[in-house]
Amino acid sequence: MKLGAFGRKSRQRTVVPPATVESMQSHSHSVLRLGILGCGTVGGALIRLIETDADRIAARTGIRLEVSRVAVRNLSADRDVNLPSDSFTRDPASLVNSPDIDLVVETIGGIEPARQLVIDSLKSGKPVVTANKELVANVGQELFEAALAGGVDLFFEAAVAGGIPLIRVLRESLAGERISRVMGIVNGTTNFILTKMTEEGAEYADVLAEAQKLGFAEADPTADVEGGDAAAKAAILASIAFGAKVVAGDVYQEGISRISPADIAAASHMGHVIKLLAVAEFDGREVAVRVHPTMVPEHHPLASVRESFNAVFLEGSEVGDLMLYGRGAGGGPTASAILGDVICAARNLQQGVASDLGVLSEFAIRPIDETDSAFYLQLDVEDKPGVLAAVTSVFGDHGVSIRSMEQQGQGSTAHLVFITHQAREADVQATLRDLRNLSEVKDIGALIRVIGD
Amino acid sequence: MKLGAFGRKSRQRTVVPPATVESMQSHSHSVLRLGILGCGTVGGALIRLIETDADRIAARTGIRLEVSRVAVRNLSADRDVNLPSDSFTRDPASLVNSPDIDLVVETIGGIEPARQLVIDSLKSGKPVVTANKELVANVGQELFEAALAGGVDLFFEAAVAGGIPLIRVLRESLAGERISRVMGIVNGTTNFILTKMTEEGAEYADVLAEAQKLGFAEADPTADVEGGDAAAKAAILASIAFGAKVVAGDVYQEGISRISPADIAAASHMGHVIKLLAVAEFDGREVAVRVHPTMVPEHHPLASVRESFNAVFLEGSEVGDLMLYGRGAGGGPTASAILGDVICAARNLQQGVASDLGVLSEFAIRPIDETDSAFYLQLDVEDKPGVLAAVTSVFGDHGVSIRSMEQQGQGSTAHLVFITHQAREADVQATLRDLRNLSEVKDIGALIRVIGD
Repeated sequence: MKLGAFGRKSRQRTVVPPATVESMQSHSHSVLRLGILGCGTVGGALIRLIETDADRIAARTGIRLEVSRVAVRNLSADRDVNLPSDSFTRDPASLVNSPDIDLVVETIGGIEPARQLVIDSLKSGKPVVTANKELVANVGQELFEAALAGGVDLFFEAAVAGGIPLIRVLRESLAGERISRVMGIVNGTTNFILTKMTEEGAEYADVLAEAQKLGFAEADPTADVEGGDAAAKAAILASIAFGAKVVAGDVYQEGISRISPADIAAASHMGHVIKLLAVAEFDGREVAVRVHPTMVPEHHPLASVRESFNAVFLEGSEVGDLMLYGRGAGGGPTASAILGDVICAARNLQQGVASDLGVLSEFAIRPIDETDSAFYLQLDVEDKPGVLAAVTSVFGDHGVSIRSMEQQGQGSTAHLVFITHQAREADVQATLRDLRNLSEVKDIGALIRVIGD
Repeated sequence: MKLGAFGRKSRQRTVVPPATVESMQSHSHSVLRLGILGCGTVGGALIRLIETDADRIAARTGIRLEVSRVAVRNLSADRDVNLPSDSFTRDPASLVNSPDIDLVVETIGGIEPARQLVIDSLKSGKPVVTANKELVANVGQELFEAALAGGVDLFFEAAVAGGIPLIRVLRESLAGERISRVMGIVNGTTNFILTKMTEEGAEYADVLAEAQKLGFAEADPTADVEGGDAAAKAAILASIAFGAKVVAGDVYQEGISRISPADIAAASHMGHVIKLLAVAEFDGREVAVRVHPTMVPEHHPLASVRESFNAVFLEGSEVGDLMLYGRGAGGGPTASAILGDVICAARNLQQGVASDLGVLSEFAIRPIDETDSAFYLQLDVEDKPGVLAAVTSVFGDHGVSIRSMEQQGQGSTAHLVFITHQAREADVQATLRDLRNLSEVKDIGALIRVIGD
């Protein structure tokens, strides 16, 4: 990208002649013709939102949004949107290539055919707004390059944490900030399940079944409960927060399916709650990024994020602690994020410019084995003399220092709860392996990472 | 403002030729020459931040920030910044008019001479970034018009809630959203005092004295504790959230100096905490905007905002509930917000465009008397037969419906705590006037508004 100088010349204004704020209202509006790929929950909500609010948006921004074409799989499906039937097409390529479309919104999800359609749109000079986290988390770099080549915007605010404004905040508001850590509750389903387990003392399987009945969890909940959804979002957050190339496959992931009411009770006993966190860290040289259940102190702002709400907590060099909280999913919040992106892209298109995507550089991804954390671990052991010494010496052998230990007797079995000081993941895993080989150890519960205040 | 069409023509890219992300790194950087008005806590922090991070910012954005000139009152003051002594001037007008300055940052505060300097900068085609809430809250409209006339950016992210990205989020990310309510904890001093009173059961005067000793409160704390600072921020938030002309003088304000430990204990007894909230509401026709102590349910995200942290809670038509939390003051967070604005303004300057300021329209400001709320009220009354009937009939006479009443006997005096249903402010004030005239009423405590979950 060739950069103009900040001289007198480049400061001439061609598109913003002198005018008062009031006089803007009396001018006619530019029409932006939208092509929308997909008409499911998100696409439908967006079309309804534009129908309701087009006049208000035109009055405020000077831009009149018009849904020109919508690509769908099934033309005869019943849709709760008020568009002429000839707006719909089964041919997304014709939409992308049409000279009558100014901007493309992609809401179909998945990698293909979304990837090819987005690339073709960008290459033909059409800005793209997408809500597709798999796409950005897996082939983001390719999309960024196509956007730069086309000289147009690629926006994806809706791809991470739905209605919470994160991407634009990281790219623009925090452009001068060195972000060292991002911790997010970015999956509503798992936060709903953990909230119910915490507040009602319920079992994981029972709450999952209830969530499925209520429509908060999919019939196949794997992507949510095993952390895959959160991992894709973590990759995008790390990319934008650190300016680093990070893809979904770089993210270590553990889900919540092994979390028991006993773990939650133990956390509560220590003044903590268990949350599924996406954690991304950057020290200027290496990026570490992972998704796992985490014990969060009750006073931490992330601890009060309940039910299906999402939140992202950032630690910046100057700004300090910052948290953004809101609805991470659903038609309304996602459509709102898309609409914000569409309006920004429209303003840029009007002025003949594109937003700076920033530079994504190559940094090493730190393997999970080389990351540090405090850990919580529960063991059931035979209740006989010498067992505690045997167990603690295993920790010691691997240099894992114990911060606290609590023993609850249960007849022939003693229940031990350990919290470690900060320890290297590899050392803790080696400790676990050796503990499993100890004949006195009957059972090992979930290993849960613990964050400080 | 004349608006270009979204035709083929306007989509030609002059400044963003095809390039890959990687190739950006190899290009030379544009230099942006900053003129800074003021070198106090914020100006100094900004200069140090630019010194530390200029290389990193140049690598990531292609823009090299250079502090060219700094206008100060006293040339001989000792400043912890690493600039040549001829960078400093006592003549701010020369800085503003210099052809060697590309962008002006205003950190001097107050209305004059800041107003004139900002207007002159904008008129001469220099974008302005300001952290000055008084300026924007009192003469914002005049500044917006000067920015439009100059065809340049006017950014003021740092003027409200320091490092929390609010203005850009409202203007851009939520551009498609109808915001109906904004509730903010936007004054760190009062939140610090209320947190200490809540967690330590301390008296207002004692905590204020401690805060003054620690430097969290000014020697004259009036602007903080009586709500004036929060009112200026509320006016700015209402303007941007609703696209409405609102100035500081439109904001009804009550401070926290009458809040007693008994009020806080009563709030806690009902599962609430007391916070000083800036509340702005918009129903599409009228704007209501006020600052007052408020009882907030413990489960509400605003309740967990402790110490000197700030947070703003928004209710939008599509996005639902959204909260932004962080540091509202201090050199680092404020400098970070300014730097984000500077980088955005630099990108725009490079491309020869200015951000859309949006249209601020005239809406009626609803007088406080015509607003509705639930209320908490404590009375001390003579403990004799018929008193409760006399008191409650006063509420009834004014159509104020009581949701709950609790009586605590104290010898000859009974202590009554009332919570009303939603009631009109004027009716509650009339109730209070009549209660004061009732001979059986010995004392009336603070009247505190209550919000729901």
